[in-house]
Amino acid sequence: MDAEAFHVYDTTLRDGAQQEGLSLSVQDKLAISRHLDELGVGFIEGGWPGAVPKDTEFFRRARTELNLKSATLAAFGATRKAGGRAADDELVRALVDAETPVVTLVAKSHVGHVERALRTTLAENLEMIRDTVSFLAGEGRRVFVDAEHFFDGYRSTPEYSIEVIRAAAEAGADVVVLCDTNGGMLPDDVHAVVGEVSAATGMRLGIHAHNDTGCAVANSLAAVAAGATHMQGTVNGTGERTGNADLLTVVANLELKRQRQVLPPGALQESTRIAHAISELTNTVPYSRQPYVGASAFAHKAGLHASAIKVDPDLYQHTDPSHVGNDMRMLVSDMAGRASIELKGRELGFDLSHDRDLVGRITQRVKEMEAAGYTFEAADASFELLLREEVEGERGRFFEVEAWRVITESRPGVEAASEATVKLRAGGERAVITGEGNGPVNALDHALRTAIGTLYPEIDKIELIDFRVRILDAAHGTDAVTRVLVEMADGESSWETVGVGANIIEASWEALVDGVTYGLLRQGAERMS
Amino acid sequence: MDAEAFHVYDTTLRDGAQQEGLSLSVQDKLAISRHLDELGVGFIEGGWPGAVPKDTEFFRRARTELNLKSATLAAFGATRKAGGRAADDELVRALVDAETPVVTLVAKSHVGHVERALRTTLAENLEMIRDTVSFLAGEGRRVFVDAEHFFDGYRSTPEYSIEVIRAAAEAGADVVVLCDTNGGMLPDDVHAVVGEVSAATGMRLGIHAHNDTGCAVANSLAAVAAGATHMQGTVNGTGERTGNADLLTVVANLELKRQRQVLPPGALQESTRIAHAISELTNTVPYSRQPYVGASAFAHKAGLHASAIKVDPDLYQHTDPSHVGNDMRMLVSDMAGRASIELKGRELGFDLSHDRDLVGRITQRVKEMEAAGYTFEAADASFELLLREEVEGERGRFFEVEAWRVITESRPGVEAASEATVKLRAGGERAVITGEGNGPVNALDHALRTAIGTLYPEIDKIELIDFRVRILDAAHGTDAVTRVLVEMADGESSWETVGVGANIIEASWEALVDGVTYGLLRQGAERMS
Repeated sequence: MDAEAFHVYDTTLRDGAQQEGLSLSVQDKLAISRHLDELGVGFIEGGWPGAVPKDTEFFRRARTELNLKSATLAAFGATRKAGGRAADDELVRALVDAETPVVTLVAKSHVGHVERALRTTLAENLEMIRDTVSFLAGEGRRVFVDAEHFFDGYRSTPEYSIEVIRAAAEAGADVVVLCDTNGGMLPDDVHAVVGEVSAATGMRLGIHAHNDTGCAVANSLAAVAAGATHMQGTVNGTGERTGNADLLTVVANLELKRQRQVLPPGALQESTRIAHAISELTNTVPYSRQPYVGASAFAHKAGLHASAIKVDPDLYQHTDPSHVGNDMRMLVSDMAGRASIELKGRELGFDLSHDRDLVGRITQRVKEMEAAGYTFEAADASFELLLREEVEGERGRFFEVEAWRVITESRPGVEAASEATVKLRAGGERAVITGEGNGPVNALDHALRTAIGTLYPEIDKIELIDFRVRILDAAHGTDAVTRVLVEMADGESSWETVGVGANIIEASWEALVDGVTYGLLRQGAERMS
Repeated sequence: MDAEAFHVYDTTLRDGAQQEGLSLSVQDKLAISRHLDELGVGFIEGGWPGAVPKDTEFFRRARTELNLKSATLAAFGATRKAGGRAADDELVRALVDAETPVVTLVAKSHVGHVERALRTTLAENLEMIRDTVSFLAGEGRRVFVDAEHFFDGYRSTPEYSIEVIRAAAEAGADVVVLCDTNGGMLPDDVHAVVGEVSAATGMRLGIHAHNDTGCAVANSLAAVAAGATHMQGTVNGTGERTGNADLLTVVANLELKRQRQVLPPGALQESTRIAHAISELTNTVPYSRQPYVGASAFAHKAGLHASAIKVDPDLYQHTDPSHVGNDMRMLVSDMAGRASIELKGRELGFDLSHDRDLVGRITQRVKEMEAAGYTFEAADASFELLLREEVEGERGRFFEVEAWRVITESRPGVEAASEATVKLRAGGERAVITGEGNGPVNALDHALRTAIGTLYPEIDKIELIDFRVRILDAAHGTDAVTRVLVEMADGESSWETVGVGANIIEASWEALVDGVTYGLLRQGAERMS
């Protein structure tokens, strides 16, 4: 596999973030980048520095906080303003200041858009492309050009669209990406146009497809079949309107159906896990019918099939789900095969291979808890506490909670405030402590820390750094089950815990107590006898 | 348009019902059939009489209760058992008893399936097909044959798969439908096979595609391009695993992109409404990114586009959304400028074009609020209340909140419980009401409803259906800003509101109050003077 021979170019952080209801913080973007790097994509388009303040910040922090193994970071931007000079253009300068090896420039390639949206002449548009590409190339950047609205433009005035590609190529662009910006193409259209443009220009071509006709994946494949060697997509197909091509589906089709390896060996097997992790980070509900990685993608319901599947599973599945890290479901739970529990135990330092009963008991408990809404995929620390409880007979007990109460109050003209009282026993003493906070979980956190702080001064090193809430069953509104994920850190490491309950505060408390318990274990605090 | 020239064959009630979590009553099936008939599909596959008792009942009731305008009902079933006679086969008889003009028979066309799943000989399988088709044709039925696992079978032993088609044709079948049962094909595969089979047999061919490679729509189109004149799909793409080809997307592509009319004139414009109605009946959450008919399908976010869209909407949409009964929607977001605020106002019935100051003020306020964490793109109702406040001077005031308090408590051995007290003035009266709930927001919702219920009985129609929480800045854990989105509905429509605050309960309360206010406005309740 040569990452340069075929570009897997991810734009989840830029075009994917155009999705309705999606808003990514800088922290989210950094976390998603790490997952993308692990997936082995060739390029990560991080955002539009200069135009979006959050993106400027992302590239600044990426320099010190991201240590990408294999992916190359790309900054996205537009050609310079009409009538100016690229070297003086503030937004073009911001692209240089982002300090990425690659800059991807969007350029107009559709006469109607040049004249009516950009409101400049066709000649000036070409000049903007030449000037901006050559300026950035001169600054040592590798330049890719996104030819916006290419397919629509080529349909009306093919000569001009070809001129745009030639201008980019002559000025030093490495790849020109043909964009179906409005998403209206069908695979036959894409195949024909990519073939014609490739023959006419000899340029290295890419494809950027949207899903407005339900054909984003097929359009990407059609472009590749016609010679494109650069494919842009987003994880889970997020994006404006109906979304972008789902990068994972295109990659799985290329690797499994066309025997064309485009990710590092073994990477495809991580795709289900990474797709779900990115869903969590974008706080979007995973789409169960998603090809390859969806929860239902290898789930079998038809009674007709059930017995035959036992005879030969390959008769009823189009590929082995383990190729993409997914599972055939009949066996229910997401994570809970015995083998994976054993493996996970080994990863956490517990050798479970000698005790079949124990593994069976843990598997059963995980299944039951996952059915109730827990997820251990994103909450390793809670899973480790569960293992400890089954293996060692206790969860790591530092304190015993008796009761808690939290009051949140809003009065005229004052911000709402919360006050929590925690009653617990620790080190033979009973403590009744009240803490204040700007929210109920914050108040509980403060009260808990004070209540155990004298006995366990290690608690000061443990910080609550993230707190996420998901309502699991939308059908019932506030009656639904709530899942809370809490992330804590101690300066050396971070860990996640999970809590579930009909009551959001109760679920938060469960995750909070697990997080503190795990942190104290890590710190080597002395447990209650 | 000639319904016979191209068969639009719907299998939502049979193959679509194989979707995980989906269960249709006879009543649901009758209601869906009426919608399908209104959409103008040629055929409705109602189920498998004899094998599924509910389906036997459906066909019985359909005879008297369904008065289909144009669609023809089809019963689905299998070829007779090995070693028997079709005329004596109980399940084949049940197909006759269903009294439908069409019977669609599933037949094995894959050697591995005949030998390992059906466990009979290749010759007997052909005999089962001949016997069953000719028996049903003799009973006056029009027979379609679904050649199961056709593409996989054809790949391994093309000769046998062709023999299956010839057997069906000779026995009197009208159409043979090539099924990609496991869904693993890509469009090139489908195009090649349909072309070869058509040339080899001269038979009228159909296509039945699944979405396991994300190509169900493209595969259906590829088959049609290669000569298939019968297309099976389901509304909204429901179905086993990743689902079936979405019938609406395939039809919209054929009509709008290939100028091939396959539904009665004007019918396509009903597709958004019918897609949503069928979502309701199947109790599945509509997929907002669904091509053509999804809520986001014509939604625009990027401020970059908004000014150009005012100039010429066709520059930024691949088709006119009214062709499928959908609407262009402008999303108010942090990328939004004045142009999109004006467009959005127009969409909500406020003409803002005459008042530059007002637009400037609203734009400024939206920007400030979005910087503080609000998002209006997913909360149209909160944005409309904000518009009302700026345009009309008030938000739609039904009650005045004085104070509220919510207590959540956990005691040994008892589930956590919440209790909320709301103090407000409505209709000149002061109310102090306490409500209980299984969570703090649930308790507040109950208290608020009781407090205003006497004055505004309309509140009973308003239901809280979804509640989503997002912690905006992960860096500060429980100190972070919380955004809450609340969705409410009144049986006719649903709306979303947003609340933001350091305190999760306060943010929830804000969204709750906006949601109730908007709902009362919709219900035409009388406001406070």
